Amino acid sequence: MERTITLYTNPYSRGGIAHWMLEEIGVPYRVEYLQYGTSMKAPDYLAINPMGKVPAIRHGEVVVTEAAAICAYLADAFPEAGLAPPPAERGDYYRWLLFVAGPLEAALGLKACQVEMSADQEMQLGCGRLETVLDVLADAVRGRHYIAGERFSAADVYVGSHLGWGMQFGTIDRRPEFERYWQALEQRPAQRRSMAQIEAAMAEYPLPGAEA
Amino acid sequence: MERTITLYTNPYSRGGIAHWMLEEIGVPYRVEYLQYGTSMKAPDYLAINPMGKVPAIRHGEVVVTEAAAICAYLADAFPEAGLAPPPAERGDYYRWLLFVAGPLEAALGLKACQVEMSADQEMQLGCGRLETVLDVLADAVRGRHYIAGERFSAADVYVGSHLGWGMQFGTIDRRPEFERYWQALEQRPAQRRSMAQIEAAMAEYPLPGAEA
Repeated sequence: MERTITLYTNPYSRGGIAHWMLEEIGVPYRVEYLQYGTSMKAPDYLAINPMGKVPAIRHGEVVVTEAAAICAYLADAFPEAGLAPPPAERGDYYRWLLFVAGPLEAALGLKACQVEMSADQEMQLGCGRLETVLDVLADAVRGRHYIAGERFSAADVYVGSHLGWGMQFGTIDRRPEFERYWQALEQRPAQRRSMAQIEAAMAEYPLPGAEA
Repeated sequence: MERTITLYTNPYSRGGIAHWMLEEIGVPYRVEYLQYGTSMKAPDYLAINPMGKVPAIRHGEVVVTEAAAICAYLADAFPEAGLAPPPAERGDYYRWLLFVAGPLEAALGLKACQVEMSADQEMQLGCGRLETVLDVLADAVRGRHYIAGERFSAADVYVGSHLGWGMQFGTIDRRPEFERYWQALEQRPAQRRSMAQIEAAMAEYPLPGAEA
């Protein structure tokens, strides 16, 4: 039996990552747009994601939250799309997916909160300094089309989205390695289809430049 | 051909997570202990993890960094250990692995840096408030032995380690849900074997209470 997929998102949010991933998978899905502070914190949605955050997906009875987890889940649930390496060859795939979901997100959060990290904090925190995180990520994409092996994967959807949005919103430096990597990914038809839907939703639900 | 596994770690670090995971897998591995600020930042090790952080593993030619990525990689590279659900059934598995690697780590980092989150920051940051993150995690483990389905998995190694170490070091509240979940995991022979090695290394390399 076909299980319905619902994407819970907001056009100004990390939900764009899951939206692009769904377009890459190529199966039907419905989109439910939630608004910050209102429908995102309503009991119906808190039953799906008690954090009151987007994105989340529901696939039949399965609920997945966290944009990186949604990418990894969909790649495995729909193996015919070929968006994950074979299980025994996932070193780079998991490494960079988790590097962006962990250290990059954490270091960007500290920067957004104007934290100046001490030497002790740099040692204790899993993420280290944002400049180091970006240096390492630039090395990882330099001269490569894809971040995990020779094929496009869910890790590129996730890492590419962060770099693309980060450069657009000015939270991530426009380094040449990032621009080159992102410019190729941005051309993908699935990315463009998701972006067209997101832009239409932005027009329908105008919001202050909020991002979550 | 057998590929050697090397674990790069420090007994006071998140490397304990990867150490436990290797004991659960049950294949031979060697451990290289690195010291903060010296061997962890030496060129030999920066060639493996340019962040200069532990843990990392090398498995033949494959290098994996980030404790959660190491758990996910090893579970897939050694399927006979049965530490990951079948690929089509990984909703909860990826969700909670990423929830702890992302929001929990980030929220703990902000707390360690004494950040008082504003309402706008709470909306923009992926992690939200630490109290909310812990509420959601307590709901996820309440009344359950394992966080993803009915079987122990790599997600329990990762989530359990964070809760166990966090409660021990006082960064995570001793909630009854966390204590119950962790107490059962702590009894696992593989966890005890890794802890015995870590304690021996602590005695050999005494360090100020640093954690990374």
